Amino acid sequence: MDFFYSQKLSRIPADFLSLADYERQAQDFMPHPVYEYIAGGADRDQALNNNRTSFDDWQILPSVLNSFRQANSTVHLIGQALAHPIIAAPVAYQRLVHNEGELATAQACTATESQMVVSTLTSQPLAAIGEQVASPWFQLYFQAQKQQTLQLVRQAEDAGYSALMVTVDVPINGLRIRAQKAGFALPPAVRAVHVSDAPPPLIEANQSVILNGYMAHSPSWDDIAWLQQQTQLPIFLKGILSTHDASQAQQAGLAGVVVSNHGGRSLDCLASPIHQIAAIRAAVGGDFSLILDSGVRHGTDVFKALALGANAVMIGRPIMYGLAIAGALGVAHCLKLLREEFELTMALAGCPTVEAITASHITRRP
Amino acid sequence: MDFFYSQKLSRIPADFLSLADYERQAQDFMPHPVYEYIAGGADRDQALNNNRTSFDDWQILPSVLNSFRQANSTVHLIGQALAHPIIAAPVAYQRLVHNEGELATAQACTATESQMVVSTLTSQPLAAIGEQVASPWFQLYFQAQKQQTLQLVRQAEDAGYSALMVTVDVPINGLRIRAQKAGFALPPAVRAVHVSDAPPPLIEANQSVILNGYMAHSPSWDDIAWLQQQTQLPIFLKGILSTHDASQAQQAGLAGVVVSNHGGRSLDCLASPIHQIAAIRAAVGGDFSLILDSGVRHGTDVFKALALGANAVMIGRPIMYGLAIAGALGVAHCLKLLREEFELTMALAGCPTVEAITASHITRRP
Amino acid sequence: MDFFYSQKLSRIPADFLSLADYERQAQDFMPHPVYEYIAGGADRDQALNNNRTSFDDWQILPSVLNSFRQANSTVHLIGQALAHPIIAAPVAYQRLVHNEGELATAQACTATESQMVVSTLTSQPLAAIGEQVASPWFQLYFQAQKQQTLQLVRQAEDAGYSALMVTVDVPINGLRIRAQKAGFALPPAVRAVHVSDAPPPLIEANQSVILNGYMAHSPSWDDIAWLQQQTQLPIFLKGILSTHDASQAQQAGLAGVVVSNHGGRSLDCLASPIHQIAAIRAAVGGDFSLILDSGVRHGTDVFKALALGANAVMIGRPIMYGLAIAGALGVAHCLKLLREEFELTMALAGCPTVEAITASHITRRP
Amino acid sequence: MDFFYSQKLSRIPADFLSLADYERQAQDFMPHPVYEYIAGGADRDQALNNNRTSFDDWQILPSVLNSFRQANSTVHLIGQALAHPIIAAPVAYQRLVHNEGELATAQACTATESQMVVSTLTSQPLAAIGEQVASPWFQLYFQAQKQQTLQLVRQAEDAGYSALMVTVDVPINGLRIRAQKAGFALPPAVRAVHVSDAPPPLIEANQSVILNGYMAHSPSWDDIAWLQQQTQLPIFLKGILSTHDASQAQQAGLAGVVVSNHGGRSLDCLASPIHQIAAIRAAVGGDFSLILDSGVRHGTDVFKALALGANAVMIGRPIMYGLAIAGALGVAHCLKLLREEFELTMALAGCPTVEAITASHITRRP
Repeated sequence: MDFFYSQKLSRIPADFLSLADYERQAQDFMPHPVYEYIAGGADRDQALNNNRTSFDDWQILPSVLNSFRQANSTVHLIGQALAHPIIAAPVAYQRLVHNEGELATAQACTATESQMVVSTLTSQPLAAIGEQVASPWFQLYFQAQKQQTLQLVRQAEDAGYSALMVTVDVPINGLRIRAQKAGFALPPAVRAVHVSDAPPPLIEANQSVILNGYMAHSPSWDDIAWLQQQTQLPIFLKGILSTHDASQAQQAGLAGVVVSNHGGRSLDCLASPIHQIAAIRAAVGGDFSLILDSGVRHGTDVFKALALGANAVMIGRPIMYGLAIAGALGVAHCLKLLREEFELTMALAGCPTVEAITASHITRRP
Repeated sequence: MDFFYSQKLSRIPADFLSLADYERQAQDFMPHPVYEYIAGGADRDQALNNNRTSFDDWQILPSVLNSFRQANSTVHLIGQALAHPIIAAPVAYQRLVHNEGELATAQACTATESQMVVSTLTSQPLAAIGEQVASPWFQLYFQAQKQQTLQLVRQAEDAGYSALMVTVDVPINGLRIRAQKAGFALPPAVRAVHVSDAPPPLIEANQSVILNGYMAHSPSWDDIAWLQQQTQLPIFLKGILSTHDASQAQQAGLAGVVVSNHGGRSLDCLASPIHQIAAIRAAVGGDFSLILDSGVRHGTDVFKALALGANAVMIGRPIMYGLAIAGALGVAHCLKLLREEFELTMALAGCPTVEAITASHITRRP
Repeated sequence: MDFFYSQKLSRIPADFLSLADYERQAQDFMPHPVYEYIAGGADRDQALNNNRTSFDDWQILPSVLNSFRQANSTVHLIGQALAHPIIAAPVAYQRLVHNEGELATAQACTATESQMVVSTLTSQPLAAIGEQVASPWFQLYFQAQKQQTLQLVRQAEDAGYSALMVTVDVPINGLRIRAQKAGFALPPAVRAVHVSDAPPPLIEANQSVILNGYMAHSPSWDDIAWLQQQTQLPIFLKGILSTHDASQAQQAGLAGVVVSNHGGRSLDCLASPIHQIAAIRAAVGGDFSLILDSGVRHGTDVFKALALGANAVMIGRPIMYGLAIAGALGVAHCLKLLREEFELTMALAGCPTVEAITASHITRRP
Repeated sequence: MDFFYSQKLSRIPADFLSLADYERQAQDFMPHPVYEYIAGGADRDQALNNNRTSFDDWQILPSVLNSFRQANSTVHLIGQALAHPIIAAPVAYQRLVHNEGELATAQACTATESQMVVSTLTSQPLAAIGEQVASPWFQLYFQAQKQQTLQLVRQAEDAGYSALMVTVDVPINGLRIRAQKAGFALPPAVRAVHVSDAPPPLIEANQSVILNGYMAHSPSWDDIAWLQQQTQLPIFLKGILSTHDASQAQQAGLAGVVVSNHGGRSLDCLASPIHQIAAIRAAVGGDFSLILDSGVRHGTDVFKALALGANAVMIGRPIMYGLAIAGALGVAHCLKLLREEFELTMALAGCPTVEAITASHITRRP
């Protein structure tokens, strides 16, 4: 395990000017299999790569000579005010790249006024994380037994978590060719502290290990309804790409959805969230919370997501890269860079508030 | 001949995780001219390459939280139930890459519950193949003499073949520049066991050796009508790309068509089947069988083909690559990989049955 | 001069299977400056390159099971029957690459039943060319003096030329950066045998050497009308890209137009003829002759041009490459390859005659 | 400082045939940090690169056989006649690359009949520049204090400047990653002679240094109205990309706008001016002056800009490259090359005057 944590930087190099610099350096700060596990997408990396290039399909149309006297980047979401719309996504096993793991991320979120979401597969205790950052949200994977699921929810509630984010797009793991070819396996010292490994699936003769085995316990809309009855916390569904599912979530009385393709890690060939967000916003109207996830790496990406209808965005891999390179300091620097790029984009696009960031400031690349 | 068959693997390497791995390794398991003959397309490989990239023009839109209690991948076609929609295409001269040739492929199809189609240019006897796999289909090339054609049909019927697939897209061979430049010729030990070589075409002065020589015996719709009178077997036409021809086949009372550009091996510049399938489905309605062929290499391709209107798909070159690398075992592994990728795609796209795979699960890449 | 002509081949290598093989080898058979002059386009080669890639924007949709009993590739144009639709374009100074120049090209056209067009800037006498090929056409550049122009027309008429093709798209030479950087200059031994060099332009103070100097003698529609009164020969305008100009040519009673951007040699950034031909055919209706020129290198290109509305096509650079490599034999082989590719395309696309090659056999690449 | 100015050429090499040759050589004539500052765009150079490739999205449709008897390239703008539509943009700190800086550029403009625009950040005095070129225009950056702004205007008026061009698209500097990574800083010997450095921004606790600090003094429409009351000079707004802002400028009674994304130097991801110009022309009608800036490097670019609705164009970086390589001679040669390319384009496109350059001569690349 020492190997993982031997090389952290204690100050940020002067030429780390954007998240791209972190991305470029990250592989030098972790074992190759871990890097492949984190950086890789599903299968042939098509969704992963499309997530990035899809942002280039839009360009920004600034307006000029607007007053910035009351300018700010505050957003309001499920009754909470966030200082800015950049949220730390629920990345699993953060101790893979830094001994402090989620605790360091929590400190960075506090330092940068960023909302944090903690994974069911956290490698640090929910309660300890909750002591480092104000009212985090909890990402929930449904467990094979409802009782296990409920226990997770209660632990989050008890630790002061203020929302649930139920991931619904990976009822079964995607193909992780790069991780598999690199021989990735979770090291013994890193584990999910709140859940235990699922038993291998049981199937009958002539049944499909995929369709009938692994999918046997996949959650359904009924399970969501059950969850709503168990908790007062606002609930997001994470992993929505279709207008139909977003509308169904809205009608079910949920707090919002995360438009995401799981960072390109579930099914290759999935559409890019940035290409779906406008249609989903049109389907749900203005009052339903939409968070865009997958591919956000730059302040202009944040701007484009909001112009197309998102209320906020989440970033995942950059958290891990910042953590791997410089711990809490690295994560904080990544969040700070992104926020500054976003505010600079607001300034140069003529938008003094996030409410001013509308579809009139964006155009399809011809 | 020994050279061809000296290097087969007896177990599958651990890093063969997809058909791309087979494709990458295949050239090490056969002489270069044979590889060029099999891997190459017509002329400049435009149709060949477009067949692959055209699949990328569509992306998948999953739906979430659906029940998988009754999930399966069974398809129904011409009154037959196939365990899954992936069919082994009628590739000619399979002994080119493995001494057992079509017999090994037949064993692999049995092991993986896959439908097999056997070529008129099979290098193993129809009857012997029929003993290795249940109710294969027979691909028919019209011969210069009707009596020869009829004899082939009778041999298939007698051996228990359950359908005919008449290839109509290569009345004359395409330009095979890569094979020609590599000096490919059929080795003496490999031959079509059921047909003999056609004599060179005869033309008059001022006639075109192409238009009037080779095309003199090209089949017509009248020949198809004649064939229908000779047999009770359901008949597919293989090599259809236009809605007009598909509709004409339907009106003629045929069982279905294979939407194909012959794997990019006939005429370069042909449209890709995956781009034509939706229009053809719209033209023929829901009750006419459509099989998509050409370019299928991944489970997501199968899903896209079905979402756009196909009932099933065929794969050709992967059969030959699996055969060349590890015989029946290699072919079976390729078919298994493809089926698992397809079922995983169904799971992650929220489709518990093939009937659930509709156009709402697919979107044009923006 | 000897250097130019020392390396011709007396037989065609077995691996020259398409015009691409000639194009690849051509630079080894001529001095670099000559190659740059011939192969290069205007300025940055954008029009040159687009001419080629634009053909890829269309794909072919075959029809199957059609009868080829009366198949042939004959076309009819201005009352003449051509054995096939591939015409040798009027390339200037053909002695640049072979001592026999236009005479060799004429022999090749005779051998392959191809229509030949002879340039005003021919480096062999019109009459001598006329003895090698039946009823060639004459390409006319308007001269500074009408008397000079008329003299050219009379020479062509006297030598049995059967049509005029007036080039209208280069009233001034395009920028030929590649030729200029390579130091190209016409060698003393090669010259236009029928015209003499134009004097440098005269301009007044504050006038533009381009707009007022070189353009002083550019031809106008009035000059075309004058020419029609001087000759009984059918007249084509060469170098039309807009529907407006094509319609004006039709209304002026001309025989047809050549839709061309001068092989990408006049103005960079020009639209590709293959992208304009359909609109021009729609504008002029079915009875006006359209020849497509610029970028044709393959039999499928010929098929696409005809499917989009052309009656015939012209090829330029391939003539020079064939000539440079193997003289009359090389040109004849190029023309033969192209015709065979075209007839093979007809066969595989299900078109027994050129009349059958319609827009239903072509589709925009998605 | 000597280093900067040691390598100028005193004559133009024979193979400098276009602005691309200057661009290719420029880095050899200045220190690397200076080159990165000048050549680089904002952030990831997306806007910079798109500015160039966007021109390729249009192609030219020539018309033929038009009379050029009265041909010329004169344009009329805000009551002034320009000999041609190519304007030298207001590039800051021109002494960075040549000791004479803006004075040399002024001489080149005089020699080539080109309109010059002088930057607020000029490194030579406005008055001295005004002695080298007839009625230049003055580019104005609003200063923190209105009095400072007014003083700049008065200096320009006193020196005979005939128009103002107020830059509105960089109220805050863009991210200049390339310049920053190269360690660029203004050398002591080069400075803006008419303005002094702004003090660092003051913000309160919890305020954003960007949104509340640097943007505190950003100009608004009210400031423009104030400026109109202070001067009789015609006023352009520079840095408009939206139809809304262009219309607002027109309604405010301004002379025109410069459609520009600041040469890709302000906000990355901005739309390209050449993609916005047609919509803006449609919004403002025919009588409002539009100058296109950003990405113009070739005479065909000028033609396309005018065909889509611009009255004139500006070039920036090429001025600096010409200056760096050969001083006034280099700038003059760049302007001459561009004008000749433009006039050649007019000739080959069949447009004898700029009025003839209409949308019918341009087509979207298919």
